[in-house]
Amino acid sequence: MTSGEPAGADETRLYEIWGEIADLEAATELLEWDQETFMPAAGQEGRGKLLGTVAALIHRRLTSPELADVLARCAERARPGSLLAAQVARARHAVGRAVRVPESLSRAIAEAASAGVVAWKRAREAADFELFAPALRRLLDLRRQQAAAIGDGGPPYDAMLDGYEPGATEAQLTPLFDQLRRTLTPRVRAVVESGKTIDESPACGHFPAAAQEAFVRRVAAGIGFRFEAGRLDPATHPFCVGLNPGDVRLTWRLVEDDFRPALFGVLHEAGHGLYEQGLPAASSRTPIGAIASLGLHESQSRLWENHVGRSLGFWRWVLPTFRDHFPAAPRFTAAELWPALHTVKPSLIRVDADETTYNLHVVVRFELERALFAGELEVGDLPAAWDDLYQELLGIRPENVADGVLQDIHWSQGMFGYFPTYTLGTVIAAQLIAAAERQLGHLEELLAAGEASQLLGWLRRHVHRHGSRFEAAELVVRATGKPLAADDLLRYLDETIERAYGA
Amino acid sequence: MTSGEPAGADETRLYEIWGEIADLEAATELLEWDQETFMPAAGQEGRGKLLGTVAALIHRRLTSPELADVLARCAERARPGSLLAAQVARARHAVGRAVRVPESLSRAIAEAASAGVVAWKRAREAADFELFAPALRRLLDLRRQQAAAIGDGGPPYDAMLDGYEPGATEAQLTPLFDQLRRTLTPRVRAVVESGKTIDESPACGHFPAAAQEAFVRRVAAGIGFRFEAGRLDPATHPFCVGLNPGDVRLTWRLVEDDFRPALFGVLHEAGHGLYEQGLPAASSRTPIGAIASLGLHESQSRLWENHVGRSLGFWRWVLPTFRDHFPAAPRFTAAELWPALHTVKPSLIRVDADETTYNLHVVVRFELERALFAGELEVGDLPAAWDDLYQELLGIRPENVADGVLQDIHWSQGMFGYFPTYTLGTVIAAQLIAAAERQLGHLEELLAAGEASQLLGWLRRHVHRHGSRFEAAELVVRATGKPLAADDLLRYLDETIERAYGA
Repeated sequence: MTSGEPAGADETRLYEIWGEIADLEAATELLEWDQETFMPAAGQEGRGKLLGTVAALIHRRLTSPELADVLARCAERARPGSLLAAQVARARHAVGRAVRVPESLSRAIAEAASAGVVAWKRAREAADFELFAPALRRLLDLRRQQAAAIGDGGPPYDAMLDGYEPGATEAQLTPLFDQLRRTLTPRVRAVVESGKTIDESPACGHFPAAAQEAFVRRVAAGIGFRFEAGRLDPATHPFCVGLNPGDVRLTWRLVEDDFRPALFGVLHEAGHGLYEQGLPAASSRTPIGAIASLGLHESQSRLWENHVGRSLGFWRWVLPTFRDHFPAAPRFTAAELWPALHTVKPSLIRVDADETTYNLHVVVRFELERALFAGELEVGDLPAAWDDLYQELLGIRPENVADGVLQDIHWSQGMFGYFPTYTLGTVIAAQLIAAAERQLGHLEELLAAGEASQLLGWLRRHVHRHGSRFEAAELVVRATGKPLAADDLLRYLDETIERAYGA
Repeated sequence: MTSGEPAGADETRLYEIWGEIADLEAATELLEWDQETFMPAAGQEGRGKLLGTVAALIHRRLTSPELADVLARCAERARPGSLLAAQVARARHAVGRAVRVPESLSRAIAEAASAGVVAWKRAREAADFELFAPALRRLLDLRRQQAAAIGDGGPPYDAMLDGYEPGATEAQLTPLFDQLRRTLTPRVRAVVESGKTIDESPACGHFPAAAQEAFVRRVAAGIGFRFEAGRLDPATHPFCVGLNPGDVRLTWRLVEDDFRPALFGVLHEAGHGLYEQGLPAASSRTPIGAIASLGLHESQSRLWENHVGRSLGFWRWVLPTFRDHFPAAPRFTAAELWPALHTVKPSLIRVDADETTYNLHVVVRFELERALFAGELEVGDLPAAWDDLYQELLGIRPENVADGVLQDIHWSQGMFGYFPTYTLGTVIAAQLIAAAERQLGHLEELLAAGEASQLLGWLRRHVHRHGSRFEAAELVVRATGKPLAADDLLRYLDETIERAYGA
């Protein structure tokens, strides 16, 4: 609790109960991290049950009548705008989502998600959407039931979005994604039709695994990731978990013939990790001690990955370290490498996409899941709709569903409304970096001087230290002086493409 | 549930509730394993709270009125000797220990243990017992309160023993430990006074860390440890945890100038691990799905460490593998090495002790904690009593308390009654191996032929598969045909010393 006011008995009890909820959530983080890193294969069945039990205990705690009573009494006492009011609001948001969903429905969703992943893997291997369609229909049906239980009469998709991005709505996101689609689609097409290509040879060569590990550790520490409060381990699908600000874990993977996947992957996860390490320790285990939203989380990863890691200033700083670790790598200057970090190449697979086309991959998913929830699209028509959108937005068409509609795991886990947070994060990142630059001066020079800590300090003050005291949308206004908008991102991409590909 | 009878609603509910308890215990195992292996240093504070929350949730579940009701109804229905009766008995034992201790006392013990470890570390560094004495007095006082709450009017120490070795009592252990003391003390003195020494040079040399790791993995797999259901990681104080039979984790440490600490450490932990991997999967997450007692657990580790790992047969099998991994090691035959695995050398530190004197280290601790609980010994007199006993039993005297009464962490964590399980395990191991040999034939030959799997199969049938269906004492009778006794151990040690040191 960070409040200066003395806490009453109700507040004390609120933080006791929430401490248990937060601890169970931290246990979940560790259990999931372990599952993806070190768990032996035969532990899978037991791990599934264990995670189910912990989820049920969290649900039971969130829905306990005592917590509802304590929150009601705290709400009466909380002055508007006070820390306590934020604690109550954050807690009530989570409680509200939990209590309105019957335990039987929660369990049905968990089971359908578990079956969904199995069906998805089989369908993806066979490149046969029909093997996945029944599981997807079931998940959609259950999630619609959940949306009906949670929602306030708005579009059912809003209840999905709200699970990852509290306060976000379809009505607010649609114009944003439309703008990205309208602007980026012709921009990408123009690059493709220009026939210009970028020399990527500086990024290619042989980069031994041990040297890459030493290098990315140096870089992560160099931008401020505290290894005494964190780790870095290999994983097939990299991610970041934070148990508490003192225990934040990054994962990564590498290829040996290109240093970019490992470096930008680690910068991405370290961006997440810096946010987790910067959460307010004094509010740990209270409702506002957590991240504000997945979009805000993603903004931190995209900021360090793209705006820092792909910048000329960063490379002027990191190049000597790079050469120390890769003495046999091609000799290039920061300026010679820079274009190879900003290619624009339409591709089929989201996770391999460049910083420009990535957003169009997300637009595809947003439009499709929005349509599915609105009843405008049937599951059976999904593969064709997917392929058509790729054709329209990116000018390419998947040859099979494995490289198309079946490429991502999210829907098979019942995660609808998650994809938009990827691009929301990208939009917020560009807006934050523009605001930081206005206040700190030319970031290029700061980064070149090895002063990433100044940027981190700015993010600590304006983003991290607030935890979830404010909703993401409000935090963006407070940090940048204006509401969330795609202008800064589009300007950044425009300038970058122009510089990389010529006018 | 392994029963063939159809389960009633009460049984189903019993297994649901117990599944949650077992899951929370598995979470604790992972949290503790992680704390000792991979957790970043700054995660300590959060981890302490998390473990406290999980412990409180287990306690709450064990003491829930619903569980008591369900158990009462299952007890009425259970035929004596049936699986259900065992399930109920095992559950009631845990419930009984939990419900009789008020939550405030549980919390006080947890806090005193946490403070105890801090005080112990400080006292040990300063080699000043007075820095630890107040914390120890407090822990003893709280544990006596707990014993009074739990106990049935017997000696308070019995309630401590029962926490680790269900059913064990001071009255039963005292003659056993007296016998060990009476027999081993003169035997050790005779070896020392004979002036004979054993050439340990075959075990010494340079054993590179990477080669040791490859070697101990081969050995662990060779005796049947399934790495697809387990792991091996470095840790300062090696241990084994089992989340479930599919996820069992060993830890180890090494020194580079002697291969014995790593090899026998891993054989020890792998022995624990084989037991965990052999627990009845069909009874996972039920009361009888767990280990029977710490003494039985230790019997499995001692059996593989001492009776297998130090045997001539094992070495005839493993020697070619050893030479593959350590080409620069001294060339010795199994027979030449064998005496170096059976030295008898009185020393001050328990964890470094040989297989004979180890038991006397445990006798010291048993006698002292028994006396503390009986009120026959004051905390202030403990260091002198310790030193006197070492003089009497081992013929040596610690120069300071760091190498004396402060060497072990157990008492600082409030763990009284734990030490005896080490020697109980050693006694059971010798009795089991003698029984196995009667049934399987000459183990020496089996092991030399690489047939450790036959011994493992025997342990699976007679020990592992029962989980905690039977109390350890009953299991020993069933497996070996006679009650627990030190005869087999004393005969083994006698023969071994005679063979190693000459008549």
